[in-house]
Amino acid sequence: MNNSSKQILDDSSNITDAIDALTAFDHIIVNANLATFSAQYGFDIYSANQKESTPYGQLENAAIGIKDGKIAWIGTHTQVVPYLTHYRSQQITDAHGHWITPGLIDCHTHIVYGGNRSNEFEARLHGANYQDIAAQGGGIVSTVRSTRKASSDELFAQSEKRLLALIKEGVTSIEIKSGYGLDLDTERKMLMVARQLGKKHNIHVSTTYLAAHALPLEYKERADEYIEQVCEWLPILHSEGLVDAVDGFCENIAFSTEQIRRVFEVACSLDLPVKLHSEQLSDIGGIALVAEYKGLSSDHLEHLSEDDIKKMAASNTVAVMLPGAFYTLRDTKLPPIEELRKHQVPIAVSTDCNPGTSPLTSLLLAMNMGCTLFYLTPEEVLAGATVHAAQALGLAKKGKIEVGCDADLALWDITRPADLAYQMGLNPIKGIMVKGEWR
Amino acid sequence: MNNSSKQILDDSSNITDAIDALTAFDHIIVNANLATFSAQYGFDIYSANQKESTPYGQLENAAIGIKDGKIAWIGTHTQVVPYLTHYRSQQITDAHGHWITPGLIDCHTHIVYGGNRSNEFEARLHGANYQDIAAQGGGIVSTVRSTRKASSDELFAQSEKRLLALIKEGVTSIEIKSGYGLDLDTERKMLMVARQLGKKHNIHVSTTYLAAHALPLEYKERADEYIEQVCEWLPILHSEGLVDAVDGFCENIAFSTEQIRRVFEVACSLDLPVKLHSEQLSDIGGIALVAEYKGLSSDHLEHLSEDDIKKMAASNTVAVMLPGAFYTLRDTKLPPIEELRKHQVPIAVSTDCNPGTSPLTSLLLAMNMGCTLFYLTPEEVLAGATVHAAQALGLAKKGKIEVGCDADLALWDITRPADLAYQMGLNPIKGIMVKGEWR
Repeated sequence: MNNSSKQILDDSSNITDAIDALTAFDHIIVNANLATFSAQYGFDIYSANQKESTPYGQLENAAIGIKDGKIAWIGTHTQVVPYLTHYRSQQITDAHGHWITPGLIDCHTHIVYGGNRSNEFEARLHGANYQDIAAQGGGIVSTVRSTRKASSDELFAQSEKRLLALIKEGVTSIEIKSGYGLDLDTERKMLMVARQLGKKHNIHVSTTYLAAHALPLEYKERADEYIEQVCEWLPILHSEGLVDAVDGFCENIAFSTEQIRRVFEVACSLDLPVKLHSEQLSDIGGIALVAEYKGLSSDHLEHLSEDDIKKMAASNTVAVMLPGAFYTLRDTKLPPIEELRKHQVPIAVSTDCNPGTSPLTSLLLAMNMGCTLFYLTPEEVLAGATVHAAQALGLAKKGKIEVGCDADLALWDITRPADLAYQMGLNPIKGIMVKGEWR
Repeated sequence: MNNSSKQILDDSSNITDAIDALTAFDHIIVNANLATFSAQYGFDIYSANQKESTPYGQLENAAIGIKDGKIAWIGTHTQVVPYLTHYRSQQITDAHGHWITPGLIDCHTHIVYGGNRSNEFEARLHGANYQDIAAQGGGIVSTVRSTRKASSDELFAQSEKRLLALIKEGVTSIEIKSGYGLDLDTERKMLMVARQLGKKHNIHVSTTYLAAHALPLEYKERADEYIEQVCEWLPILHSEGLVDAVDGFCENIAFSTEQIRRVFEVACSLDLPVKLHSEQLSDIGGIALVAEYKGLSSDHLEHLSEDDIKKMAASNTVAVMLPGAFYTLRDTKLPPIEELRKHQVPIAVSTDCNPGTSPLTSLLLAMNMGCTLFYLTPEEVLAGATVHAAQALGLAKKGKIEVGCDADLALWDITRPADLAYQMGLNPIKGIMVKGEWR
């Protein structure tokens, strides 16, 4: 819909024109309250003057017109009521005053993996320490072993359960990382499974190459050689259409900034965006690196300094909070939320779903943890699972309800948006729309 | 089935007799791994010699025969395979090697209430303190107001969503408290809704009278008078068949031990069991009181002393852990788990589902929190949501898989029982049986 037809609708001066404009929509949603997360509707979470912003970019008693899988028009319920008789009933959704948010986006996950680690979870609670578990072949090594061993079909079946749990709670876009293969074939297998999951379940999957996740046993004390391999595999997998972004784990227990830089250089040469797991356990300069490469996001961040935050603000890098890992590890060092707000760094919230430190397949629960553990506000965690998560994945047309954006929506049986962060274990989803189609 | 027919099956010496015995079952479950939580199968969580106990009372490759809603026989899969042709296919459940636990039991909930308090949750995260919120009519007062205002149908509809969330995760028995009415009519309305919920959804509901939950505004500074009313209402509601047990909130901010004693005296005269919210915020002697009255359970317990624990052990009172409230309140004082183990006090785990301090409708998540926040083992939290929760409700025939117990079962797609406590947000339920019928 172009501006003039929008004007026709808004004016309603010419009924025939208005009918033509409105009935051109494939679908229309009426009687909805919207949490748009769009600046066009006043969403401005870090506005110096909060009074000028509209929380959640909310718009009550609204209607949405959808055309070709995109949001074509947003107006008021009363504007469309006179024209509803021109639609077939299947084209109309009456939201009955419920709330609609953008489809949720889980921007940091490792949902594709083989096996699970509940045995280690149990052993630790019976007193085993990390050394005991490592000595028994546990830890990430055990997930690498199970992931290498699993056939593609097995890996798909195991991962699909996790994806479905997320989708059931309104997730319409998800990032999925490799990084439990640590060899070319298994990294490829993981990324292919990620693509297949998206295809089968008709949701958006952003794949991330994370071969620089851990040093495989066969490269013990040969980290530089391993990184060489990581750099060689990347163009191969990219040429197969399997890679949307590149990530690395930059910590004392993983890879140095110099090693990650080499991987980022290859990513750059392929025009692939980068991101980084960093400052979870210590501050070794990962942020400076990711900011230098204009990274999409930097993730974990419990040990972030204010200097780093300024760098992130300058490079427009999203801070991805992973409270599920903080909770599971019983961490006590909070990420510097107040400083991130001060420097207006967009904050995303994600499950970090992984078998070791965050066996979490509920983005709603990650949001609750963001509030309860990190003192984020409900508006922040919801923005963190929509508009800021979209930014963390470089998806300009997702994560907000705005004309021109993908019609990826979640319809909720709630009385106010904060309910989504407040409730634990209650899934108030009423409907999920992906590119204009209800699932 | 009597012992002799059990012997016939076990011996399989006489095929005709064995067929007669087996085909007398209404239903048979084959190819199952059982977490029985029965001492008959070695469950003995506080055994001095752990080597003599069988974790979870587990029994692999098992079969269960069900008759008249009860577990009539437990044996091995191979024992029944030869006789399966004598059943109609609808009578047989092939568990495909999945795990079966007793149906879960949520033994401490306030799921019946009007309104919600997400507005306060949000306000606090924007900096409001409890005084601000109280000044605006928030806190428990607001839930009392909403609950009084709601019609029975509204209260039913709101509470049903919470109940369904719990049932979906395998809960087959639940305790529901009154205590947001604080007047006779509304306490009655809450208890009636609790009964109706159980009836409509065919699960066991234990109702608890908790009028001594908070002092209603209209009795300000007249707590003794209010307690007099509480004592008067109890026989009335009991005579209407609405009360299975009596609870009170014994804290500095609520009622004294002397006031609660008066309520317990009435409970005793009616042969009703008692329980107590106590030692959550302070140690004011609630445990001694509940132990004196041989209470079923004492709940919360962060401030429990070892002396109290000895009293609980002597009175066989269950310690009910409510980690959802601990988490939501960002509490830091852990309950004395090690001492409870030492004195072999049975530990239960529950959601404490309520709109203020624990808006939690996932017993699986409460179990995970029991492990992660309270360092309970997966076996402890699972026992805490089955056999020990049954004990906390005085239900001798529930919470374990044993001949003579109710056939309330949950079938799970998991690789080992610990998965239920390890995973967050993934619901691996495959089937729920209540009194011998799959839901």
